[in-house]
Amino acid sequence: ELRDALAGSFGSATLAGLRVLVSAGPTYEDIDPVRFIGNRSSGRMGFAVAEAAAAAGAQVTLVAGPVSLPTPAGVARRVDVRSAAKMREAVLAASDTADIYIGAAAVGDYRPAQVAERKLKKHDGAPLVLDLAENPDILKDLAATHPHPFLVGFAAETHDVAAYAQDKLSRKGLDMIAANRVGAGLGFEADDNALSLYWPGGSEELPRASKRELAARLVQCVGMRYRAAKP
Amino acid sequence: ELRDALAGSFGSATLAGLRVLVSAGPTYEDIDPVRFIGNRSSGRMGFAVAEAAAAAGAQVTLVAGPVSLPTPAGVARRVDVRSAAKMREAVLAASDTADIYIGAAAVGDYRPAQVAERKLKKHDGAPLVLDLAENPDILKDLAATHPHPFLVGFAAETHDVAAYAQDKLSRKGLDMIAANRVGAGLGFEADDNALSLYWPGGSEELPRASKRELAARLVQCVGMRYRAAKP
Repeated sequence: ELRDALAGSFGSATLAGLRVLVSAGPTYEDIDPVRFIGNRSSGRMGFAVAEAAAAAGAQVTLVAGPVSLPTPAGVARRVDVRSAAKMREAVLAASDTADIYIGAAAVGDYRPAQVAERKLKKHDGAPLVLDLAENPDILKDLAATHPHPFLVGFAAETHDVAAYAQDKLSRKGLDMIAANRVGAGLGFEADDNALSLYWPGGSEELPRASKRELAARLVQCVGMRYRAAKP
Repeated sequence: ELRDALAGSFGSATLAGLRVLVSAGPTYEDIDPVRFIGNRSSGRMGFAVAEAAAAAGAQVTLVAGPVSLPTPAGVARRVDVRSAAKMREAVLAASDTADIYIGAAAVGDYRPAQVAERKLKKHDGAPLVLDLAENPDILKDLAATHPHPFLVGFAAETHDVAAYAQDKLSRKGLDMIAANRVGAGLGFEADDNALSLYWPGGSEELPRASKRELAARLVQCVGMRYRAAKP
C-alpha cells in the first residue's frame, strides 16, 4: 500500500534508478568488554527511511548500528556495525556507488579515549574519570570527498532545533537536513515523530505522524530536491 | 515440561511457598537526555532464573533493567527500571517480603557525576572528560539489613573468575554466588552460559548449557542451600 501511495501521488518524485545509502540506529562506544557509551536511538526512523526509499524504487543499502530490528522489505543490502568508527568505514565504503546518502544514525560524538581489554573493577583504584576522544564526523568527511552523494543529515535536539539545524546544514555543507525535537512523545524511543526539513534556500514542515508516514514524505522531498539540484 | 522435570527430579528442593526476588538486565546511567553508559547484559539469564523459580513453585517478583524481553510465564510481578539508583529502590522495597534474593542484574558500578538537562554539544567547548560517581552496592546494602533474604549474587568476569567470585562471596557476605566467564560464546549477549556456584564451604560446577537449563539447575541448588542454611 505504501508503494502504491507513493507511486500514485508523487510519480515524478520517485527514486527509481537511484542508489540510496541510509545509516540508522545508535552507535555503542566500548569502555571495556562489558560497558559502553550508547544513545537512545532505536533505529526505527532510519529503518523506516530505508523502507520508504526502497518502496520509492531506489536500490537501498542500510548501515545499521546495534538495534534489534528486522531488515525492512525491499532493502538490497544491510551492514551491521557497532561503533562510530565502524559505521564510518561502512558508510565511506558504500558511498562511492551511492547517489544519495541519508544519515539517520545517531552517531556517538565521543568515544572512550582508551578501550580497556579487561573489565574495569570498582576496587582497582581506577580514577572516577572517563577520558573521551572526539569521533570523526561522517557527514563532514563525505562532504569533503568529490564527487560525493547528495547529502541528507539529521539533527535530533532537545532545544533550539531550527537554529541548530540550519547552522549544521551550512557548516557541514549538506544538501538537506531533517530536524526533530527529542522529547514529549517524539523522537528517540517514540513511535511518532515530526520533522522540519531545511535545504539551501528553502524549508518544509512535516507535521507529527508515524515514523513510517514521515519517512515516505521525507523520501519524496529528498527525491524532488535531488532532481532539482542535479538536473 | 520444565515444571515436570523439576518436580520429578528434585522434589525436595523445590521453592514451593517461598517468595523469590530476582533482578535482571543491565542498568543505563544517563549522561544527558540522549546519551548513557550501559552494559552488555541482555537480561536473558535473569529472566530465565525468574521463570525457573516460578516453575519451581516460588512467588516471583522480577525487577528488570532496560531490556526488550517479555515477562516470563508464572512471574507474579514485574517492576521495570532504568538506572542503578532506581533498581536499588525497587529491590530494597521488595526485599522485605522476599525469602530469597537472586541478583542477576548487571548493575552499573558508575554513573556520570552530573546528568546534563540538555544534550551536550560537540562544540560547546565541554572538556573531553566524563566525571563518574560510584553507584551504591545493592547486595552490600541488603547484606547490612537484618533480617535480610538469602542472598545470591552473580559475578560476570573476563579473567580470574573463580578467585574474584570467592572474594565477592565473602566480602559482601553472600549466601551463594554464581560466577560465569564472559566471552567465547558464553555470558552476555550469548544463548549459552556456564556457571560455577560457590557458597561458604562448598561449590558446584554447572557446565555449558542453554540459559534456560542452567537457570533450572541454579534454582534447584539455591533451594537446597536455602533449606540447609535456614532449616
